Amino acid sequence: MPDQRCRVAVLASGRGSNFKAIAGACRDENFPARVICLITDNPAAPALELAADDGIESFTVPVTEKKGRLPEADELKIVDICEKRGVDLIVLAGFMRILKGPLLDRFEGRIMNIHPTLLPSFKGLHGVRQALEYGAKVSGCTVHFVDRTVDGGAIILQAAVPVDDDDDENSLLQKVNKEEHRIYVEAVELFATGRLLQEGRRVRILGNDFSRKG
Amino acid sequence: MPDQRCRVAVLASGRGSNFKAIAGACRDENFPARVICLITDNPAAPALELAADDGIESFTVPVTEKKGRLPEADELKIVDICEKRGVDLIVLAGFMRILKGPLLDRFEGRIMNIHPTLLPSFKGLHGVRQALEYGAKVSGCTVHFVDRTVDGGAIILQAAVPVDDDDDENSLLQKVNKEEHRIYVEAVELFATGRLLQEGRRVRILGNDFSRKG
Repeated sequence: MPDQRCRVAVLASGRGSNFKAIAGACRDENFPARVICLITDNPAAPALELAADDGIESFTVPVTEKKGRLPEADELKIVDICEKRGVDLIVLAGFMRILKGPLLDRFEGRIMNIHPTLLPSFKGLHGVRQALEYGAKVSGCTVHFVDRTVDGGAIILQAAVPVDDDDDENSLLQKVNKEEHRIYVEAVELFATGRLLQEGRRVRILGNDFSRKG
Repeated sequence: MPDQRCRVAVLASGRGSNFKAIAGACRDENFPARVICLITDNPAAPALELAADDGIESFTVPVTEKKGRLPEADELKIVDICEKRGVDLIVLAGFMRILKGPLLDRFEGRIMNIHPTLLPSFKGLHGVRQALEYGAKVSGCTVHFVDRTVDGGAIILQAAVPVDDDDDENSLLQKVNKEEHRIYVEAVELFATGRLLQEGRRVRILGNDFSRKG
């Protein structure tokens, strides 16, 4: 019998701790999604090793520009990889490129990202550091759909994390990462079971009352 | 023996539910602060009744401009009321005026405000509605020191509140208000016992490890 589970492509540039968390959840055959492939713009990404260990196909897309937005030609390569494999959901896990082009058109409403703050606070590259420097007492993380804004897409899940007086960037990041892994896996599960309903900017979670009772 | 507790003036324009929470806490003689007076810019503020019921002196400062910033002459009246009564701490509880002038100079680092979101998200007048419209999944409230910015002063305490799919502005506001009353009372207590240490934008809470053990 063919595997009917939701087909996920993960895009990562670095360490890939969220990739690891999601791939780990997908190893359970009762989890409603599986990771089809890892795509990276960084040939030295530790995520590549994780993929190899897990038997997950991986692709290194040699990116023609050093930083920032992904050139359209490179986005098209990723589109091609995903479409050929029947990918249902694209998960960004520390992918350090801004998507603006064809990937967004072809996978609209099917791309998720995670951000290490409670958006809309502290957008951008160094969210955890910004939260600390601002003096926030509560921070957290956000899983959101990706749209043409930077860190501005509709929010799927958020989790709060207390900022303690003795927290530095590293200790706060650790607490945030832990919550990230939890809510990112949950968001993939919700998507894979068709339970996310986007209405304008609000994302409703269907069947929230009974789904955990089975 | 004279009452040595921290002397608080509350400024409110409306309903005054935070005023009520703080005045309620202060009724306990073991609480380290007491409300000396209520000052309002609104002769119809329900907070005035609450003050009368509690035997708290109150002042209605007739404000010469309809909205927004408090004119300097009116701020001076409030300064005068507070200084004559040896006020240690000014607590804004739904005070719908922006302070920019002499009150800030004379009471710098001794004025607190509460905002019904997790700042810096959703500043301004309709924070709860903004959070809902943005599609936030976690919101909350913030007690902060007042400085010359709008809702931008150093953060003293924050509390998170989950936003549920069926929340509207009213139901979310109720949840936020409940947390507001809790953290505002706690912030006054921390100030009154000298346990707030502002370092740049971060406010540290002294003696956090043992204070609850007694």
